Amino acid sequence: TRASSKVIKVEAPYGKPVDAEDVRRAGKGKKINIIGFAHGETSTGVVTGIDPYRKVADELGALLIVDTVASLAAVPLDVDRQRIDICFSGSQKAISAPPGMSPITVSPAAEEVFRKRKTKVQSWYFDLTTAMNYWGKDRLYHHTPPISLIFALREAMRLVAEEGLEARWERHRVNQLALIAGIEAMGLDLLVKNPADRLPTVTAVMIPSGIDDVKVRNQLLDEFNIEIAGGFGAVKGKIWRVGLMGYCSQKPFVLLFLAAVEKCLLDQGFRVPSGAGVGAAIRSYSQVETAAAVSR
Amino acid sequence: TRASSKVIKVEAPYGKPVDAEDVRRAGKGKKINIIGFAHGETSTGVVTGIDPYRKVADELGALLIVDTVASLAAVPLDVDRQRIDICFSGSQKAISAPPGMSPITVSPAAEEVFRKRKTKVQSWYFDLTTAMNYWGKDRLYHHTPPISLIFALREAMRLVAEEGLEARWERHRVNQLALIAGIEAMGLDLLVKNPADRLPTVTAVMIPSGIDDVKVRNQLLDEFNIEIAGGFGAVKGKIWRVGLMGYCSQKPFVLLFLAAVEKCLLDQGFRVPSGAGVGAAIRSYSQVETAAAVSR
Repeated sequence: TRASSKVIKVEAPYGKPVDAEDVRRAGKGKKINIIGFAHGETSTGVVTGIDPYRKVADELGALLIVDTVASLAAVPLDVDRQRIDICFSGSQKAISAPPGMSPITVSPAAEEVFRKRKTKVQSWYFDLTTAMNYWGKDRLYHHTPPISLIFALREAMRLVAEEGLEARWERHRVNQLALIAGIEAMGLDLLVKNPADRLPTVTAVMIPSGIDDVKVRNQLLDEFNIEIAGGFGAVKGKIWRVGLMGYCSQKPFVLLFLAAVEKCLLDQGFRVPSGAGVGAAIRSYSQVETAAAVSR
Repeated sequence: TRASSKVIKVEAPYGKPVDAEDVRRAGKGKKINIIGFAHGETSTGVVTGIDPYRKVADELGALLIVDTVASLAAVPLDVDRQRIDICFSGSQKAISAPPGMSPITVSPAAEEVFRKRKTKVQSWYFDLTTAMNYWGKDRLYHHTPPISLIFALREAMRLVAEEGLEARWERHRVNQLALIAGIEAMGLDLLVKNPADRLPTVTAVMIPSGIDDVKVRNQLLDEFNIEIAGGFGAVKGKIWRVGLMGYCSQKPFVLLFLAAVEKCLLDQGFRVPSGAGVGAAIRSYSQVETAAAVSR
Protein backbone atom coordinates (compact mmCIF):
# COMPACT_ATOMS: atom_id res chain seq x y z
CA THR A 1 0.00 0.00 0.00
CA ARG A 2 0.96 3.67 -0.28
CA ALA A 3 1.51 3.92 3.47
CA SER A 4 3.63 0.72 3.53
CA SER A 5 1.35 -1.12 5.91
CA LYS A 6 0.53 -4.80 5.55
CA VAL A 7 -3.09 -5.39 4.60
CA ILE A 8 -5.04 -8.65 4.85
CA LYS A 9 -8.00 -8.54 2.46
CA VAL A 10 -11.16 -10.45 3.34
CA GLU A 11 -13.63 -10.70 0.49
CA ALA A 12 -17.18 -11.78 -0.31
CA PRO A 13 -19.06 -12.39 -3.58
CA TYR A 14 -20.55 -9.30 -5.26
CA GLY A 15 -23.88 -8.47 -3.71
CA LYS A 16 -23.09 -9.91 -0.27
CA PRO A 17 -21.46 -8.23 2.74
CA VAL A 18 -18.13 -9.54 4.06
CA ASP A 19 -18.89 -11.70 7.08
CA ALA A 20 -17.30 -10.38 10.28
CA GLU A 21 -16.62 -14.01 11.22
CA ASP A 22 -14.32 -14.32 8.20
CA VAL A 23 -12.47 -11.23 9.42
CA ARG A 24 -12.10 -12.75 12.89
CA ARG A 25 -10.69 -15.94 11.38
CA ALA A 26 -8.27 -13.99 9.15
CA GLY A 27 -6.97 -11.90 12.06
CA LYS A 28 -6.77 -14.61 14.73
CA GLY A 29 -3.31 -14.95 16.28
CA LYS A 30 -1.97 -11.95 14.33
CA LYS A 31 -1.27 -8.43 15.54
CA ILE A 32 -4.06 -6.44 13.91
CA ASN A 33 -3.97 -2.65 14.39
CA ILE A 34 -6.95 -1.62 12.35
CA ILE A 35 -10.09 -3.19 10.95
CA GLY A 36 -11.74 -1.13 8.26
CA PHE A 37 -14.76 -1.53 6.00
CA ALA A 38 -17.41 0.43 4.13
CA HIS A 39 -20.76 0.69 5.90
CA GLY A 40 -22.40 1.30 2.55
CA GLU A 41 -20.70 -0.23 -0.49
CA THR A 42 -21.74 1.93 -3.43
CA SER A 43 -20.31 -0.32 -6.14
CA THR A 44 -22.80 -3.07 -5.30
CA GLY A 45 -25.44 -1.49 -3.05
CA VAL A 46 -24.60 -3.61 0.00
CA VAL A 47 -24.93 -2.44 3.61
CA THR A 48 -22.71 -4.07 6.23
CA GLY A 49 -23.66 -4.29 9.91
CA ILE A 50 -21.26 -2.46 12.22
CA ASP A 51 -21.77 -4.21 15.57
CA PRO A 52 -20.26 -7.61 14.62
CA TYR A 53 -17.16 -5.79 13.37
CA ARG A 54 -16.81 -3.87 16.63
CA LYS A 55 -16.93 -7.17 18.48
CA VAL A 56 -14.18 -8.67 16.29
CA ALA A 57 -12.07 -5.50 16.63
CA ASP A 58 -12.39 -5.73 20.42
CA GLU A 59 -11.28 -9.37 20.37
CA LEU A 60 -8.28 -8.58 18.20
CA GLY A 61 -7.40 -5.33 20.02
CA ALA A 62 -7.81 -3.31 16.84
CA LEU A 63 -9.18 0.14 16.06
CA LEU A 64 -12.36 0.17 13.98
CA ILE A 65 -12.52 2.46 10.93
CA VAL A 66 -15.83 2.79 9.12
CA ASP A 67 -16.40 4.46 5.75
CA THR A 68 -19.89 5.98 5.94
CA VAL A 69 -19.63 8.05 2.76
CA ALA A 70 -22.78 6.51 1.26
CA SER A 71 -24.69 5.96 4.50
CA LEU A 72 -24.33 8.90 6.90
CA ALA A 73 -27.69 10.64 7.46
CA ALA A 74 -29.51 7.91 5.49
CA VAL A 75 -28.88 4.62 7.32
CA PRO A 76 -29.08 4.02 11.09
CA LEU A 77 -25.67 4.76 12.61
CA ASP A 78 -24.62 5.64 16.16
CA VAL A 79 -20.92 6.49 16.17
CA ASP A 80 -20.62 6.72 19.97
CA ARG A 81 -22.76 3.77 20.98
CA GLN A 82 -21.24 1.58 18.27
CA ARG A 83 -17.77 2.76 19.35
CA ILE A 84 -16.41 3.56 15.90
CA ASP A 85 -12.82 4.76 16.34
CA ILE A 86 -12.63 6.61 13.05
CA CYS A 87 -15.81 7.33 11.15
CA PHE A 88 -15.58 9.34 7.96
CA SER A 89 -18.06 10.39 5.34
CA GLY A 90 -18.65 12.84 2.51
CA SER A 91 -20.66 16.03 2.44
CA GLN A 92 -22.25 15.47 -0.96
CA LYS A 93 -24.28 12.31 -0.52
CA ALA A 94 -27.12 11.84 1.99
CA ILE A 95 -26.23 15.12 3.72
CA SER A 96 -26.67 16.79 0.31
CA ALA A 97 -24.20 19.63 0.87
CA PRO A 98 -21.74 20.56 -1.91
CA PRO A 99 -18.83 18.14 -2.45
CA GLY A 100 -15.39 19.07 -1.13
CA MET A 101 -15.52 18.12 2.53
CA SER A 102 -15.18 14.90 4.54
CA PRO A 103 -16.72 14.88 8.00
CA ILE A 104 -14.61 12.70 10.32
CA THR A 105 -14.80 11.64 13.96
CA VAL A 106 -11.90 10.33 16.03
CA SER A 107 -12.27 8.33 19.26
CA PRO A 108 -10.02 8.93 22.29
CA ALA A 109 -8.35 5.56 21.58
CA ALA A 110 -7.47 6.59 18.01
CA GLU A 111 -6.29 10.01 19.22
CA GLU A 112 -3.92 8.28 21.65
CA VAL A 113 -2.44 6.26 18.78
CA PHE A 114 -1.83 9.50 16.83
CA ARG A 115 -0.19 11.20 19.79
CA LYS A 116 2.17 8.26 20.36
CA ARG A 117 3.47 8.29 16.76
CA LYS A 118 7.24 8.53 16.49
CA THR A 119 7.33 9.39 12.78
CA LYS A 120 5.56 12.33 11.16
CA VAL A 121 2.51 11.73 9.01
CA GLN A 122 3.64 12.26 5.42
CA SER A 123 0.57 14.22 4.36
CA TRP A 124 0.19 17.69 5.84
CA TYR A 125 -3.55 17.77 5.28
CA PHE A 126 -4.11 14.27 6.59
CA ASP A 127 -2.05 14.87 9.72
CA LEU A 128 -4.62 15.15 12.51
CA THR A 129 -1.89 15.72 15.12
CA THR A 130 -1.29 19.21 13.71
CA ALA A 131 -4.98 19.82 13.09
CA MET A 132 -5.48 19.08 16.80
CA ASN A 133 -3.28 22.08 17.62
CA TYR A 134 -5.78 24.17 15.73
CA TRP A 135 -8.77 22.67 17.50
CA GLY A 136 -6.96 23.09 20.85
CA LYS A 137 -6.51 26.27 22.83
CA ASP A 138 -3.45 27.34 20.80
CA ARG A 139 -5.57 27.61 17.65
CA LEU A 140 -2.36 27.34 15.61
CA TYR A 141 -2.91 28.09 11.92
CA HIS A 142 -3.16 24.82 9.98
CA HIS A 143 -4.60 25.63 6.57
CA THR A 144 -7.00 27.99 4.81
CA PRO A 145 -10.44 26.48 5.38
CA PRO A 146 -12.99 26.33 2.52
CA ILE A 147 -15.34 28.70 4.33
CA SER A 148 -18.10 28.85 1.72
CA LEU A 149 -18.34 25.04 1.80
CA ILE A 150 -18.39 25.05 5.59
CA PHE A 151 -21.34 27.44 5.64
CA ALA A 152 -23.10 25.24 3.07
CA LEU A 153 -22.44 22.14 5.21
CA ARG A 154 -23.79 23.93 8.25
CA GLU A 155 -27.02 24.75 6.42
CA ALA A 156 -27.32 21.17 5.15
CA MET A 157 -26.81 19.85 8.70
CA ARG A 158 -29.47 22.27 9.91
CA LEU A 159 -31.89 20.73 7.41
CA VAL A 160 -30.90 17.24 8.62
CA ALA A 161 -31.58 18.27 12.22
CA GLU A 162 -34.88 19.89 11.23
CA GLU A 163 -36.09 16.69 9.57
CA GLY A 164 -34.66 14.54 12.37
CA LEU A 165 -32.19 11.72 11.86
CA GLU A 166 -34.72 8.95 12.55
CA ALA A 167 -37.23 10.48 10.13
CA ARG A 168 -34.49 10.75 7.52
CA TRP A 169 -33.49 7.10 7.94
CA GLU A 170 -37.17 6.12 7.57
CA ARG A 171 -37.58 8.29 4.45
CA HIS A 172 -34.63 6.58 2.76
CA ARG A 173 -36.00 3.16 3.73
CA VAL A 174 -39.54 3.85 2.49
CA ASN A 175 -38.43 5.32 -0.85
CA GLN A 176 -36.11 2.40 -1.51
CA LEU A 177 -38.86 -0.09 -0.67
CA ALA A 178 -41.12 1.60 -3.24
CA LEU A 179 -38.32 1.63 -5.80
CA ILE A 180 -37.64 -2.07 -5.26
CA ALA A 181 -41.34 -2.95 -5.45
CA GLY A 182 -41.51 -1.15 -8.79
CA ILE A 183 -38.31 -2.71 -10.15
CA GLU A 184 -39.47 -6.22 -9.26
CA ALA A 185 -42.99 -5.63 -10.61
CA MET A 186 -41.42 -4.82 -13.98
CA GLY A 187 -39.75 -8.23 -13.91
CA LEU A 188 -36.24 -6.98 -13.16
CA ASP A 189 -33.93 -8.53 -10.55
CA LEU A 190 -31.69 -6.95 -7.92
CA LEU A 191 -28.01 -7.76 -7.43
CA VAL A 192 -28.41 -7.94 -3.64
CA LYS A 193 -30.74 -10.86 -2.97
CA ASN A 194 -31.06 -10.63 0.80
CA PRO A 195 -33.32 -7.65 1.68
CA ALA A 196 -31.38 -7.11 4.93
CA ASP A 197 -28.17 -6.53 2.96
CA ARG A 198 -29.61 -3.79 0.73
CA LEU A 199 -28.08 -0.35 1.15
CA PRO A 200 -31.01 2.12 1.27
CA THR A 201 -29.13 4.77 -0.74
CA VAL A 202 -27.94 2.72 -3.72
CA THR A 203 -29.98 0.02 -5.45
CA ALA A 204 -28.17 -2.25 -7.92
CA VAL A 205 -30.55 -3.46 -10.63
CA MET A 206 -29.59 -6.38 -12.90
CA ILE A 207 -29.72 -5.31 -16.55
CA PRO A 208 -32.06 -7.72 -18.43
CA SER A 209 -30.34 -9.70 -21.18
CA GLY A 210 -30.69 -8.10 -24.60
CA ILE A 211 -30.96 -4.58 -23.16
CA ASP A 212 -28.29 -2.02 -24.13
CA ASP A 213 -26.88 -0.60 -20.86
CA VAL A 214 -25.44 2.66 -22.20
CA LYS A 215 -28.42 3.35 -24.46
CA VAL A 216 -30.83 3.17 -21.51
CA ARG A 217 -28.66 5.43 -19.37
CA ASN A 218 -28.28 7.97 -22.16
CA GLN A 219 -32.01 7.96 -22.84
CA LEU A 220 -32.79 8.47 -19.14
CA LEU A 221 -30.47 11.48 -19.13
CA ASP A 222 -31.51 13.01 -22.45
CA GLU A 223 -35.25 12.38 -22.29
CA PHE A 224 -35.87 12.61 -18.53
CA ASN A 225 -32.84 14.44 -17.05
CA ILE A 226 -32.25 11.42 -14.79
CA GLU A 227 -28.68 10.21 -14.27
CA ILE A 228 -27.99 6.72 -12.97
CA ALA A 229 -24.64 4.92 -12.78
CA GLY A 230 -23.41 1.80 -14.52
CA GLY A 231 -21.38 -0.93 -12.86
CA PHE A 232 -17.61 -1.15 -12.94
CA GLY A 233 -15.07 -3.93 -12.71
CA ALA A 234 -16.68 -7.38 -12.73
CA VAL A 235 -20.24 -6.00 -12.92
CA LYS A 236 -19.60 -3.52 -15.74
CA GLY A 237 -22.53 -3.67 -18.17
CA LYS A 238 -24.36 -6.01 -15.81
CA ILE A 239 -25.96 -3.62 -13.32
CA TRP A 240 -27.47 -0.19 -13.05
CA ARG A 241 -26.92 1.69 -9.82
CA VAL A 242 -29.80 3.89 -8.77
CA GLY A 243 -29.03 6.44 -6.06
CA LEU A 244 -31.67 7.75 -3.67
CA MET A 245 -29.67 9.95 -1.33
CA GLY A 246 -30.60 12.96 0.78
CA TYR A 247 -32.51 15.46 -1.36
CA CYS A 248 -32.88 12.88 -4.15
CA SER A 249 -34.66 10.36 -1.93
CA GLN A 250 -38.23 11.50 -2.55
CA LYS A 251 -41.51 10.09 -3.84
CA PRO A 252 -41.79 12.09 -7.11
CA PHE A 253 -38.29 11.03 -8.19
CA VAL A 254 -38.99 7.34 -7.48
CA LEU A 255 -42.25 7.40 -9.46
CA LEU A 256 -40.79 9.35 -12.37
CA PHE A 257 -37.76 7.06 -12.52
CA LEU A 258 -39.94 3.93 -12.69
CA ALA A 259 -42.07 5.46 -15.43
CA ALA A 260 -38.96 6.54 -17.35
CA VAL A 261 -37.37 3.09 -17.11
CA GLU A 262 -40.57 1.50 -18.42
CA LYS A 263 -40.38 3.82 -21.43
CA CYS A 264 -36.69 3.01 -22.07
CA LEU A 265 -37.28 -0.73 -21.78
CA LEU A 266 -40.36 -0.61 -24.03
CA ASP A 267 -38.38 1.35 -26.65
CA GLN A 268 -35.89 -1.53 -26.73
CA GLY A 269 -38.67 -4.11 -27.10
CA PHE A 270 -38.63 -5.35 -23.50
CA ARG A 271 -42.24 -6.11 -22.57
CA VAL A 272 -43.40 -4.79 -19.20
CA PRO A 273 -47.01 -5.06 -17.93
CA SER A 274 -48.24 -1.51 -18.56
CA GLY A 275 -47.62 0.78 -15.57
CA ALA A 276 -46.53 -2.15 -13.40
CA GLY A 277 -43.52 -0.42 -11.84
CA VAL A 278 -45.28 2.79 -10.90
CA GLY A 279 -48.36 0.91 -9.71
CA ALA A 280 -46.34 -1.33 -7.40
CA ALA A 281 -44.44 1.63 -5.95
CA ILE A 282 -47.70 3.49 -5.24
CA ARG A 283 -49.03 0.42 -3.43
CA SER A 284 -45.78 0.18 -1.42
CA TYR A 285 -46.14 3.80 -0.29
CA SER A 286 -49.80 3.28 0.61
CA GLN A 287 -49.07 0.21 2.71
CA VAL A 288 -46.28 1.96 4.65
CA GLU A 289 -48.49 5.02 5.25
CA THR A 290 -51.46 2.90 6.37
CA ALA A 291 -49.22 0.93 8.74
CA ALA A 292 -47.83 4.17 10.16
CA ALA A 293 -51.34 5.57 10.62
CA VAL A 294 -52.44 2.43 12.47
CA SER A 295 -49.43 2.43 14.79
CA ARG A 296 -49.93 6.12 15.63
CA THR B 1 10.95 16.41 6.35
CA ARG B 2 7.66 14.51 6.07
CA ALA B 3 8.65 13.08 2.68
CA SER B 4 12.12 12.04 3.97
CA SER B 5 13.99 14.19 1.47
CA LYS B 6 17.12 16.13 2.39
CA VAL B 7 16.58 19.86 2.37
CA ILE B 8 19.22 22.61 2.31
CA LYS B 9 17.76 25.84 3.65
CA VAL B 10 19.04 29.15 2.35
CA GLU B 11 17.90 32.14 4.35
CA ALA B 12 17.86 35.94 4.32
CA PRO B 13 17.05 38.56 6.98
CA TYR B 14 13.36 39.41 7.44
CA GLY B 15 12.28 41.93 4.83
CA LYS B 16 14.79 40.86 2.17
CA PRO B 17 14.48 38.21 -0.54
CA VAL B 18 16.82 35.23 -0.52
CA ASP B 19 19.54 35.91 -3.09
CA ALA B 20 19.61 33.34 -5.91
CA GLU B 21 23.41 33.57 -5.78
CA ASP B 22 23.34 32.19 -2.24
CA VAL B 23 21.25 29.29 -3.55
CA ARG B 24 23.76 28.64 -6.32
CA ARG B 25 26.59 28.61 -3.77
CA ALA B 26 24.70 26.25 -1.44
CA GLY B 27 23.89 23.81 -4.26
CA LYS B 28 27.22 23.83 -6.09
CA GLY B 29 28.76 20.38 -6.48
CA LYS B 30 25.72 18.68 -4.92
CA LYS B 31 22.97 16.70 -6.60
CA ILE B 32 20.00 19.06 -6.35
CA ASN B 33 16.65 17.74 -7.60
CA ILE B 34 14.42 20.66 -6.80
CA ILE B 35 14.76 24.35 -6.04
CA GLY B 36 11.69 25.89 -4.47
CA PHE B 37 10.73 29.28 -3.14
CA ALA B 38 7.76 31.58 -2.60
CA HIS B 39 7.26 34.24 -5.27
CA GLY B 40 5.33 36.30 -2.76
CA GLU B 41 6.28 35.84 0.91
CA THR B 42 3.18 36.78 2.88
CA SER B 43 4.80 36.69 6.31
CA THR B 44 7.03 39.67 5.43
CA GLY B 45 5.62 41.17 2.23
CA VAL B 46 8.67 40.35 0.10
CA VAL B 47 8.55 39.53 -3.62
CA THR B 48 11.34 37.39 -5.07
CA GLY B 49 12.40 37.54 -8.73
CA ILE B 50 11.91 34.26 -10.60
CA ASP B 51 14.39 34.54 -13.49
CA PRO B 52 17.62 34.35 -11.45
CA TYR B 53 16.27 31.19 -9.77
CA ARG B 54 15.50 29.58 -13.14
CA LYS B 55 19.10 30.27 -14.16
CA VAL B 56 20.47 28.64 -11.01
CA ALA B 57 18.11 25.66 -11.41
CA ASP B 58 19.35 25.20 -14.99
CA GLU B 59 22.97 25.27 -13.79
CA LEU B 60 22.28 22.70 -11.09
CA GLY B 61 19.98 20.54 -13.25
CA ALA B 62 17.10 21.01 -10.85
CA LEU B 63 13.35 21.42 -11.28
CA LEU B 64 12.00 24.81 -10.26
CA ILE B 65 8.96 24.95 -7.97
CA VAL B 66 7.38 28.33 -7.31
CA ASP B 67 4.71 29.10 -4.71
CA THR B 68 2.56 31.86 -6.23
CA VAL B 69 -0.23 31.71 -3.64
CA ALA B 70 0.06 35.41 -2.81
CA SER B 71 1.07 36.65 -6.25
CA LEU B 72 -0.89 34.91 -9.04
CA ALA B 73 -3.10 37.41 -10.92
CA ALA B 74 -1.56 40.34 -9.00
CA VAL B 75 2.17 40.31 -9.79
CA PRO B 76 3.78 39.86 -13.23
CA LEU B 77 4.31 36.16 -13.83
CA ASP B 78 4.75 34.14 -17.03
CA VAL B 79 4.80 30.45 -16.16
CA ASP B 80 5.77 29.27 -19.66
CA ARG B 81 8.33 31.91 -20.56
CA GLN B 82 9.92 31.74 -17.12
CA ARG B 83 9.91 27.92 -17.40
CA ILE B 84 8.48 27.17 -13.98
CA ASP B 85 8.30 23.39 -13.61
CA ILE B 86 5.69 23.38 -10.91
CA CYS B 87 3.74 26.53 -10.20
CA PHE B 88 0.99 26.40 -7.60
CA SER B 89 -1.30 28.99 -6.11
CA GLY B 90 -4.53 29.43 -4.17
CA SER B 91 -7.96 30.36 -5.40
CA GLN B 92 -8.80 32.74 -2.59
CA LYS B 93 -6.20 35.47 -2.88
CA ALA B 94 -5.69 37.71 -5.93
CA ILE B 95 -8.03 35.52 -8.00
CA SER B 96 -10.67 36.18 -5.32
CA ALA B 97 -12.58 32.91 -5.75
CA PRO B 98 -13.68 30.97 -2.65
CA PRO B 99 -10.93 29.10 -0.77
CA GLY B 100 -10.64 25.34 -1.20
CA MET B 101 -8.72 24.94 -4.44
CA SER B 102 -5.08 25.14 -5.52
CA PRO B 103 -4.39 25.83 -9.20
CA ILE B 104 -1.23 24.02 -10.26
CA THR B 105 0.78 23.71 -13.48
CA VAL B 106 3.26 20.95 -14.28
CA SER B 107 5.97 21.18 -16.96
CA PRO B 108 6.80 18.25 -19.26
CA ALA B 109 10.12 17.87 -17.39
CA ALA B 110 8.32 17.50 -14.06
CA GLU B 111 5.78 15.13 -15.59
CA GLU B 112 8.62 12.92 -16.79
CA VAL B 113 10.00 12.75 -13.24
CA PHE B 114 6.57 11.66 -11.96
CA ARG B 115 6.21 8.98 -14.62
CA LYS B 116 9.64 7.54 -13.81
CA ARG B 117 8.87 7.11 -10.10
CA LYS B 118 9.43 3.60 -8.81
CA THR B 119 7.58 4.05 -5.52
CA LYS B 120 3.99 5.17 -5.17
CA VAL B 121 3.23 8.65 -3.90
CA GLN B 122 1.96 8.22 -0.36
CA SER B 123 -0.87 10.72 -0.65
CA TRP B 124 -3.75 9.73 -2.90
CA TYR B 125 -4.85 13.32 -3.45
CA PHE B 126 -1.33 14.58 -4.09
CA ASP B 127 -0.52 11.81 -6.55
CA LEU B 128 -0.56 13.52 -9.95
CA THR B 129 0.29 10.23 -11.72
CA THR B 130 -3.22 8.94 -10.97
CA ALA B 131 -4.82 12.35 -11.61
CA MET B 132 -3.16 12.23 -15.06
CA ASN B 133 -5.21 9.11 -15.85
CA TYR B 134 -8.27 11.21 -15.26
CA TRP B 135 -7.04 14.07 -17.47
CA GLY B 136 -6.06 11.52 -20.15
CA LYS B 137 -8.34 9.73 -22.56
CA ASP B 138 -9.23 7.02 -20.01
CA ARG B 139 -10.87 9.60 -17.74
CA LEU B 140 -10.49 7.13 -14.87
CA TYR B 141 -12.36 8.23 -11.75
CA HIS B 142 -9.95 9.85 -9.29
CA HIS B 143 -12.01 11.68 -6.70
CA THR B 144 -15.26 13.59 -6.27
CA PRO B 145 -14.50 17.12 -7.45
CA PRO B 146 -15.78 20.16 -5.50
CA ILE B 147 -18.00 21.23 -8.39
CA SER B 148 -19.53 24.33 -6.80
CA LEU B 149 -16.01 25.66 -6.11
CA ILE B 150 -14.92 24.88 -9.65
CA PHE B 151 -17.81 26.91 -11.07
CA ALA B 152 -16.90 29.76 -8.72
CA LEU B 153 -13.26 29.59 -9.82
CA ARG B 154 -14.35 29.66 -13.45
CA GLU B 155 -16.38 32.81 -12.86
CA ALA B 156 -13.48 34.44 -10.97
CA MET B 157 -11.12 33.58 -13.84
CA ARG B 158 -13.61 35.07 -16.27
CA LEU B 159 -13.46 38.32 -14.29
CA VAL B 160 -9.64 38.18 -14.36
CA ALA B 161 -9.71 37.72 -18.15
CA GLU B 162 -12.26 40.53 -18.52
CA GLU B 163 -10.03 42.96 -16.63
CA GLY B 164 -6.90 41.67 -18.35
CA LEU B 165 -3.86 40.30 -16.55
CA GLU B 166 -1.66 43.34 -17.29
CA ALA B 167 -4.38 45.75 -16.11
CA ARG B 168 -4.75 43.67 -12.96
CA TRP B 169 -1.01 43.73 -12.23
CA GLU B 170 -1.05 47.52 -12.74
CA ARG B 171 -4.05 47.94 -10.42
CA HIS B 172 -2.28 46.06 -7.63
CA ARG B 173 0.86 48.14 -8.16
CA VAL B 174 -0.95 51.49 -8.15
CA ASN B 175 -3.03 50.75 -5.06
CA GLN B 176 0.01 49.60 -3.13
CA LEU B 177 1.96 52.72 -4.15
CA ALA B 178 -0.88 54.86 -2.78
CA LEU B 179 -1.01 52.80 0.41
CA ILE B 180 2.74 53.14 0.93
CA ALA B 181 2.65 56.89 0.24
CA GLY B 182 -0.03 57.22 2.90
CA ILE B 183 1.75 55.01 5.43
CA GLU B 184 5.01 56.93 5.05
CA ALA B 185 3.28 60.33 5.17
CA MET B 186 1.89 59.35 8.58
CA GLY B 187 5.45 58.80 9.77
CA LEU B 188 5.32 55.00 9.77
CA ASP B 189 8.04 52.74 8.36
CA LEU B 190 7.86 49.64 6.19
CA LEU B 191 9.60 46.35 6.97
CA VAL B 192 10.78 45.96 3.35
CA LYS B 193 13.16 48.86 2.72
CA ASN B 194 13.95 48.26 -0.95
CA PRO B 195 10.93 49.29 -3.08
CA ALA B 196 11.80 46.62 -5.68
CA ASP B 197 11.44 43.90 -3.03
CA ARG B 198 7.91 44.91 -1.99
CA LEU B 199 5.18 42.37 -2.71
CA PRO B 200 2.24 44.35 -4.19
CA THR B 201 -0.36 42.24 -2.37
CA VAL B 202 0.96 42.38 1.20
CA THR B 203 2.49 45.44 2.83
CA ALA B 204 4.29 44.96 6.15
CA VAL B 205 4.08 48.11 8.28
CA MET B 206 6.36 48.57 11.31
CA ILE B 207 4.27 49.17 14.44
CA PRO B 208 5.43 52.44 16.04
CA SER B 209 6.87 52.03 19.55
CA GLY B 210 4.32 52.63 22.28
CA ILE B 211 1.40 51.52 20.08
CA ASP B 212 -0.64 48.50 21.19
CA ASP B 213 -0.71 46.05 18.23
CA VAL B 214 -3.79 44.05 19.17
CA LYS B 215 -5.75 47.11 20.28
CA VAL B 216 -5.30 48.77 16.89
CA ARG B 217 -6.27 45.62 14.99
CA ASN B 218 -9.36 45.11 17.15
CA GLN B 219 -10.39 48.75 16.71
CA LEU B 220 -9.98 48.52 12.94
CA LEU B 221 -12.23 45.48 12.94
CA ASP B 222 -14.85 46.72 15.41
CA GLU B 223 -15.08 50.35 14.31
CA PHE B 224 -14.35 50.03 10.57
CA ASN B 225 -14.93 46.36 9.66
CA ILE B 226 -11.34 46.21 8.40
CA GLU B 227 -9.26 43.14 9.20
CA ILE B 228 -5.47 43.24 8.93
CA ALA B 229 -2.99 40.61 10.12
CA GLY B 230 -0.31 40.76 12.78
CA GLY B 231 3.17 39.33 12.41
CA PHE B 232 4.20 35.90 13.60
CA GLY B 233 7.43 34.31 14.72
CA ALA B 234 10.28 36.83 15.06
CA VAL B 235 8.13 39.78 13.93
CA LYS B 236 5.15 39.05 16.20
CA GLY B 237 3.91 42.34 17.65
CA LYS B 238 6.36 44.25 15.44
CA ILE B 239 4.50 44.48 12.14
CA TRP B 240 1.04 44.81 10.70
CA ARG B 241 0.38 43.05 7.41
CA VAL B 242 -2.03 44.87 5.13
CA GLY B 243 -3.43 42.82 2.25
CA LEU B 244 -4.56 44.37 -1.02
CA MET B 245 -5.47 41.35 -3.13
CA GLY B 246 -7.86 40.88 -6.02
CA TYR B 247 -11.23 42.37 -5.12
CA CYS B 248 -9.73 44.08 -2.06
CA SER B 249 -7.17 46.01 -4.08
CA GLN B 250 -9.22 49.12 -4.77
CA LYS B 251 -9.03 52.86 -4.18
CA PRO B 252 -11.92 53.24 -1.66
CA PHE B 253 -10.45 50.52 0.57
CA VAL B 254 -6.98 52.10 0.53
CA LEU B 255 -8.34 55.55 1.42
CA LEU B 256 -10.66 54.24 4.14
CA PHE B 257 -7.88 52.13 5.64
CA LEU B 258 -5.52 55.11 5.88
CA ALA B 259 -8.25 57.23 7.48
CA ALA B 260 -9.09 54.43 9.91
CA VAL B 261 -5.44 53.91 10.92
CA GLU B 262 -5.06 57.64 11.59
CA LYS B 263 -8.07 57.44 13.94
CA CYS B 264 -6.66 54.37 15.76
CA LEU B 265 -3.22 55.96 16.16
CA LEU B 266 -4.69 59.26 17.36
CA ASP B 267 -6.82 57.41 19.92
CA GLN B 268 -3.60 55.96 21.36
CA GLY B 269 -1.92 59.39 21.47
CA PHE B 270 0.27 58.96 18.38
CA ARG B 271 0.42 62.33 16.65
CA VAL B 272 -0.09 62.31 12.88
CA PRO B 273 -0.30 65.49 10.73
CA SER B 274 -4.08 65.74 10.18
CA GLY B 275 -5.18 63.85 7.04
CA ALA B 276 -1.57 63.22 5.99
CA GLY B 277 -2.05 59.56 5.02
CA VAL B 278 -5.17 60.05 2.93
CA GLY B 279 -3.76 63.22 1.35
CA ALA B 280 -0.55 61.51 0.27
CA ALA B 281 -2.46 58.55 -1.18
CA ILE B 282 -4.71 60.86 -3.20
CA ARG B 283 -1.63 62.63 -4.61
CA SER B 284 -0.10 59.25 -5.46
CA TYR B 285 -3.21 58.27 -7.42
CA SER B 286 -3.31 61.66 -9.21
CA GLN B 287 0.32 61.40 -10.27
CA VAL B 288 -0.11 57.89 -11.67
CA GLU B 289 -3.27 58.89 -13.53
CA THR B 290 -1.67 62.05 -14.95
CA ALA B 291 1.37 60.06 -16.10
CA ALA B 292 -0.92 57.47 -17.72
CA ALA B 293 -2.91 60.23 -19.49
CA VAL B 294 0.30 61.80 -20.80
CA SER B 295 1.67 58.50 -22.10
CA ARG B 296 -1.63 57.69 -23.84
